[in-house]
Amino acid sequence: MKFVSIVIGSKSDYEVMKSCSDTLEAFGVNYEMIISSAHRSPERTKEYIITAEKKGAQVFIAAAGMAAHLAGVLSSKTVKPIIGVPMSASALSGIDALLSTVQMPAGMPVATVAIGKAGAINSAYLAMQILALDNEELAVKLKEDRIAKAKKVEMDSMEIETIISL
Amino acid sequence: MKFVSIVIGSKSDYEVMKSCSDTLEAFGVNYEMIISSAHRSPERTKEYIITAEKKGAQVFIAAAGMAAHLAGVLSSKTVKPIIGVPMSASALSGIDALLSTVQMPAGMPVATVAIGKAGAINSAYLAMQILALDNEELAVKLKEDRIAKAKKVEMDSMEIETIISL
Amino acid sequence: MKFVSIVIGSKSDYEVMKSCSDTLEAFGVNYEMIISSAHRSPERTKEYIITAEKKGAQVFIAAAGMAAHLAGVLSSKTVKPIIGVPMSASALSGIDALLSTVQMPAGMPVATVAIGKAGAINSAYLAMQILALDNEELAVKLKEDRIAKAKKVEMDSMEIETIISL
Amino acid sequence: MKFVSIVIGSKSDYEVMKSCSDTLEAFGVNYEMIISSAHRSPERTKEYIITAEKKGAQVFIAAAGMAAHLAGVLSSKTVKPIIGVPMSASALSGIDALLSTVQMPAGMPVATVAIGKAGAINSAYLAMQILALDNEELAVKLKEDRIAKAKKVEMDSMEIETIISL
Amino acid sequence: MKFVSIVIGSKSDYEVMKSCSDTLEAFGVNYEMIISSAHRSPERTKEYIITAEKKGAQVFIAAAGMAAHLAGVLSSKTVKPIIGVPMSASALSGIDALLSTVQMPAGMPVATVAIGKAGAINSAYLAMQILALDNEELAVKLKEDRIAKAKKVEMDSMEIETIISL
Amino acid sequence: MKFVSIVIGSKSDYEVMKSCSDTLEAFGVNYEMIISSAHRSPERTKEYIITAEKKGAQVFIAAAGMAAHLAGVLSSKTVKPIIGVPMSASALSGIDALLSTVQMPAGMPVATVAIGKAGAINSAYLAMQILALDNEELAVKLKEDRIAKAKKVEMDSMEIETIISL
Amino acid sequence: MKFVSIVIGSKSDYEVMKSCSDTLEAFGVNYEMIISSAHRSPERTKEYIITAEKKGAQVFIAAAGMAAHLAGVLSSKTVKPIIGVPMSASALSGIDALLSTVQMPAGMPVATVAIGKAGAINSAYLAMQILALDNEELAVKLKEDRIAKAKKVEMDSMEIETIISL
Amino acid sequence: MKFVSIVIGSKSDYEVMKSCSDTLEAFGVNYEMIISSAHRSPERTKEYIITAEKKGAQVFIAAAGMAAHLAGVLSSKTVKPIIGVPMSASALSGIDALLSTVQMPAGMPVATVAIGKAGAINSAYLAMQILALDNEELAVKLKEDRIAKAKKVEMDSMEIETIISL
Repeated sequence: MKFVSIVIGSKSDYEVMKSCSDTLEAFGVNYEMIISSAHRSPERTKEYIITAEKKGAQVFIAAAGMAAHLAGVLSSKTVKPIIGVPMSASALSGIDALLSTVQMPAGMPVATVAIGKAGAINSAYLAMQILALDNEELAVKLKEDRIAKAKKVEMDSMEIETIISL
Repeated sequence: MKFVSIVIGSKSDYEVMKSCSDTLEAFGVNYEMIISSAHRSPERTKEYIITAEKKGAQVFIAAAGMAAHLAGVLSSKTVKPIIGVPMSASALSGIDALLSTVQMPAGMPVATVAIGKAGAINSAYLAMQILALDNEELAVKLKEDRIAKAKKVEMDSMEIETIISL
Repeated sequence: MKFVSIVIGSKSDYEVMKSCSDTLEAFGVNYEMIISSAHRSPERTKEYIITAEKKGAQVFIAAAGMAAHLAGVLSSKTVKPIIGVPMSASALSGIDALLSTVQMPAGMPVATVAIGKAGAINSAYLAMQILALDNEELAVKLKEDRIAKAKKVEMDSMEIETIISL
Repeated sequence: MKFVSIVIGSKSDYEVMKSCSDTLEAFGVNYEMIISSAHRSPERTKEYIITAEKKGAQVFIAAAGMAAHLAGVLSSKTVKPIIGVPMSASALSGIDALLSTVQMPAGMPVATVAIGKAGAINSAYLAMQILALDNEELAVKLKEDRIAKAKKVEMDSMEIETIISL
Repeated sequence: MKFVSIVIGSKSDYEVMKSCSDTLEAFGVNYEMIISSAHRSPERTKEYIITAEKKGAQVFIAAAGMAAHLAGVLSSKTVKPIIGVPMSASALSGIDALLSTVQMPAGMPVATVAIGKAGAINSAYLAMQILALDNEELAVKLKEDRIAKAKKVEMDSMEIETIISL
Repeated sequence: MKFVSIVIGSKSDYEVMKSCSDTLEAFGVNYEMIISSAHRSPERTKEYIITAEKKGAQVFIAAAGMAAHLAGVLSSKTVKPIIGVPMSASALSGIDALLSTVQMPAGMPVATVAIGKAGAINSAYLAMQILALDNEELAVKLKEDRIAKAKKVEMDSMEIETIISL
Repeated sequence: MKFVSIVIGSKSDYEVMKSCSDTLEAFGVNYEMIISSAHRSPERTKEYIITAEKKGAQVFIAAAGMAAHLAGVLSSKTVKPIIGVPMSASALSGIDALLSTVQMPAGMPVATVAIGKAGAINSAYLAMQILALDNEELAVKLKEDRIAKAKKVEMDSMEIETIISL
Repeated sequence: MKFVSIVIGSKSDYEVMKSCSDTLEAFGVNYEMIISSAHRSPERTKEYIITAEKKGAQVFIAAAGMAAHLAGVLSSKTVKPIIGVPMSASALSGIDALLSTVQMPAGMPVATVAIGKAGAINSAYLAMQILALDNEELAVKLKEDRIAKAKKVEMDSMEIETIISL
């Protein structure tokens, strides 16, 4: 079974990352979500990634704050795509996590998305775009979602549209 | 035919992005590289993405500097994965391009990699990791590359290793 | 009919941008305000700008947060002046939107104003300054507003002025 | 006679700002360029703006570095549109000038463009976009320039386009 | 009569700057506090500084936020020392005001203090240190204040001092 | 008697730094905690460090905000290791304190930890890691703590683990 | 004898700070310049400030880079005005030194000027503005310098002034 | 045998880190220096730390640039003190490495020093300060070094000291 693996670095990131799993669920995509830390549970993290890959994980999503090493650690253990979600978990509003996630050295990429909730949602979308490369049904859903989003913009607009002509 | 599409925002980014295409070439991955600008040639960009997708583009790599909108524009036109490479093209050393690329709103992800050359190379690796999901041969090559990289570290180390015991 | 076109990237920016339309209204300037997104509704955005320009839009005001591409997208579709208002819509307090808006490549300018509410109001003033170039009545109103602002400063001062001489 | 007024804060900014006047000249737009400083020659700056406005200045372009107050000072003396070009003139690479120029308080806008040379060129384009609102000939030239720019992108692309299909 | 002149750029900065005038008052130092804006009331600002200097102002304290030009404007009109207090008045937490105040070009200094309340208090102390150069009584008070501050630290410490010896 | 000395720059930092002393206490490590300021009580700070070192202080922890000089001052007075904790005490969220603490010139190190509470706790751990070099009992406790932390991650994970397989 | 004391934190800052002493010298102002470090020679720094104050130092100028504590250390030892010049001495281009110098806690001000050479020159001007409060001759020189600076701007302008009228 | 272990993330960091090993060597401190990467050779890194610890490593120094995870990875594998040296290895001048190194989560400290060469030297000093806790001979050398440094400041000063008294 193919699925998306979501690894959260700390319980405190769960609430934000729920918007990631909710998004996957809304599209009917299989996923697995666990907490594991690059620093506090390095062995667990390493073992999990091996197991998950064997079970069918296609893409890993890693969410962590501060000196966010989780995505990088995953990246060093597999050649599956890793998506990194920088969390805003310190006084520095997530710029620390962003730079710790995106500035990976050559050869060890992490696909980094926006800080916080927008990034959590985008990590799900990016994972689905990857899966959709050989899942036409999912590709269709993603295209429909785009149409719905465009329509939503129009409806939002109708609520506020103003034409003042004096 | 499946291939990676590399779109460069400006000719001045070509030299850095050559390390992206060279990486793909070294792994025997099909790619296409063009220059097209989000702002100066929006129609060309839009048409290209439609054509490229029809021809078999699986992943798009967009490299741009300053207010780097190219990856975002591609992202708005397809549900294929988009990888954004922020270029250091202004006095701000690429932090402008990084934020313009990574901070995408919910639902429109760009898989962002590091600023400049490391990112250019990583965009190739990330694209290959995605393609390798259903290309076992490529997956094997990526794993071999990891082993080679680890070996390279050992050899680099041997050149400088010092043990001073007084 | 000449008017100012205000394009808001997301419904969540409406409250702040209302201070833009309120300012135009206070000066009796025609405007049109809609929501359209660079990423979620690119076609709508493109069509709108063509239509608006035909209807008489002289200046476009684009408000967006995060990787704020809206002003840049408008800029690529018209040679009318585009004013960009960076919104504070992420953990990064709008510095992402500021850089995404102002750091445009040579030949594609966006007239950028301050982040958030001050910028929303200033976008209206800047649009009016442009319109006033051939609207003497509006120019007079803008000059009167300056006098009123200076007077307001004096009145504010009177409330707190203190002279302590011991 | 309508013209664009370019005010440069320091002789050291002249070389970069020459790309502004060169751009205006290439489009056949009248302009006047002087050096005047917000801090070192405040009286001259004030008198100049009054004289220039009387002579027909429609738009002012102000270029300054560090704590760049020049555009703000002009803004306080006229209701004509002011375009601010932040120069990279200190160890901080122009981020100081950018924030000093763009973060104007409500009611006193400065139309800010990119740091350095890109901004210098864009200030010329923005000024011309404003003048073109009632100068159809200039508007046509700006549209032709867009077409030329798009064509230039295509030609640049042809030099580097690569299709590797193995 | 010698006094300190406090110029506040906006009524909204009054509350913070009250800690400046309160500090001066606590030390029995003459001061005058008004609101005047570099941008909204440039004439008033200019006239005030001339009048204040004639009346005996020895040091000017200028408090402003965002693109904080007030201190720089004062600096351009007098050779009396100008102290600049950057206010946190935008989404950027005062870093805009700090750079706009401190990065003055050669020959036009502004004595810049910390952002916000600490800076408001320090502007008073700095003004008093300057006045104390030929006011021995004030110098003594400042020295006594130092002793009191050191004592306060000791008393604060006593409240929390802990020695855990197991 | 060997102990850890905690010096807090201001009473307002006490609440955060209590998590440092609590951590030491939980591990049964001797410590002493006082308030002393680099600027307001320089003599006290200097005398304290001499006395503390004589009494057996092995490691000093210095917590300060803004232009955080406390750790640097301690560093200049002893060759014992100094740990610096940057506090978030201004509008700049502690980036001022971080740079003031970590960017020490060659030869005068400060062992800097994270901003705020995470850093307060880490300063205790780092001090204990240093003490544990010749305190096997403490080393064992630190290793047990690691195991407990890894276990805690697993338990946190169990609360949220989700496997969605459709 | 009244004089300005310049304390430089490191020999490597001498070249930049020479523009400070040169400025004082050009105005005929007495000064003394030494190297002393907050961290490497704390005792010397402390003793120097006491001696210098006794000899007639009216204002202290402290120049330092990185975690620039020198000005703060001086500030803690005297109630004479301290001017801090942040040097660009690390990869961070002086933003570390700027924040370490300006963000002083309430009650311990440092009059901070711009980073690097502009700041070095401004520290001299600020010191002279302070001395000029009871030195009418120096005040006259400073006013004449302003006039010369304004004239210099006019002459610079004449070299580049262009009026293009087509 | 007790020694300091220096782990360098990439061969390109060797030149800077040589100033670390040179410093240790100058003090007669045993050390071992290798290259190993958190991402490219995670197994080697893990095995090395276990071996090194068994062989007598007391303190680990980890130097890495960009998303610098090396120190954090070491921190997760041992309770020996880890010193992190952020390298300036990208367009962002080491601020990425600094935040990736210092912002460690609670319980997993990294003793972070300055970016680049100053930090490389300081990592050696910090390691020696730790070792000196039970090595009186080394403590004496460190104290002598302080005296030499203070003397060096005096000698540097003598070269430039100027007293201008007119």
